[in-house]
Amino acid sequence: MAGGPLKDVEHLHTDTATVRPGGRTARVGEAVIDATLSELSEVGYAALRVDAVAQRAGVNKTTIYRRWGNKVGLVSTALIERRGQLTPPADTGSLRGDLVELLKEIRLGLKVPWVAVLLREAGPRTAASADLYELLDMFWPARFKVSRVIFERALERGELPAGTDPDFLLEMISGPLYFHWLMLGHPLDDAFLDRVADFILHGAQASPPSTDRR
Amino acid sequence: MAGGPLKDVEHLHTDTATVRPGGRTARVGEAVIDATLSELSEVGYAALRVDAVAQRAGVNKTTIYRRWGNKVGLVSTALIERRGQLTPPADTGSLRGDLVELLKEIRLGLKVPWVAVLLREAGPRTAASADLYELLDMFWPARFKVSRVIFERALERGELPAGTDPDFLLEMISGPLYFHWLMLGHPLDDAFLDRVADFILHGAQASPPSTDRR
Repeated sequence: MAGGPLKDVEHLHTDTATVRPGGRTARVGEAVIDATLSELSEVGYAALRVDAVAQRAGVNKTTIYRRWGNKVGLVSTALIERRGQLTPPADTGSLRGDLVELLKEIRLGLKVPWVAVLLREAGPRTAASADLYELLDMFWPARFKVSRVIFERALERGELPAGTDPDFLLEMISGPLYFHWLMLGHPLDDAFLDRVADFILHGAQASPPSTDRR
Repeated sequence: MAGGPLKDVEHLHTDTATVRPGGRTARVGEAVIDATLSELSEVGYAALRVDAVAQRAGVNKTTIYRRWGNKVGLVSTALIERRGQLTPPADTGSLRGDLVELLKEIRLGLKVPWVAVLLREAGPRTAASADLYELLDMFWPARFKVSRVIFERALERGELPAGTDPDFLLEMISGPLYFHWLMLGHPLDDAFLDRVADFILHGAQASPPSTDRR
């Protein structure tokens, strides 16, 4: 199956969006996404087969290819719908409060079985991981876009210096949680999240605008 | 093979340390460690067999069991000798300079094939990963101990507030590199390392003593 470009997948999405919500198309969509994530939990991305997803969802595999294009299109849709297009983090009124909410959201994500499986398959970007990165390159921008809003709010409130780069802050905030949980194998308790939130808050407020460093 | 406690492994080390360096014992030790890391690169930790290491090193497997106790003892020795007991980071005279040196050292580590393989096998601490964590729980303290020295120097120079927790800072500095490289698949270029160093510097200098948050 040739890898279809993102544009094609979006085009297919637009077509299905014309079908009324709650109808058969929506039900099939949910069933296929559930089946995709179950397969992902069990076998990971590299070993995932569209046939197995189709069988699990009780649909014909041509239905999947027609709607999602290919394996990358299918799995990226599942990821983005279930982890990428989350509700924006709660507006607590302060950057520190919003950071804690975001850290809790990242913690929740790390405990989702198919997220853990997928992250274990990631790694340096190599020829062997190109297929997985085609997927991750669609996922991360969606995930970052939703999270970015807390820094935009903080900028409006004057809690962050002008020129702050939200995506860099998102890496600074996500990295320690991934490291603590996946590399050190330590629990992500509230006390740790609080310490990370404080550190990010001070680092972000004290840092010069990121554009100076580029 | 029953898992021998760390104490036994250390005891065995002490015994071999009485043999003069550069002799047959030292040569066998180097050959076995090289073979262990090669096997690790190829098959990972879970699938690594002491038999295969012995064959590769051209030694009898009873030699390995006698000297390193078991698979955990063997692999942890290899890891600690080759990645844990590194020379302490260069003393550049400033915390920012030392941070950049440390970040470069972490970057080097992430590109070692057997490190990458091992990190991919890590993950949440579960019953299934207990054996790997027996190993990582020996490795990380050795690694952190060597790196901690740069924060001790900065404390002496008055560049960090009293009560700073070096191990927390090490997580804050390592996490973003792991995330950038292993999760996002982005290159670890010097510009990124500089930005991380600046952020950590400002965060660490502005943060209240970590003991307040415990």
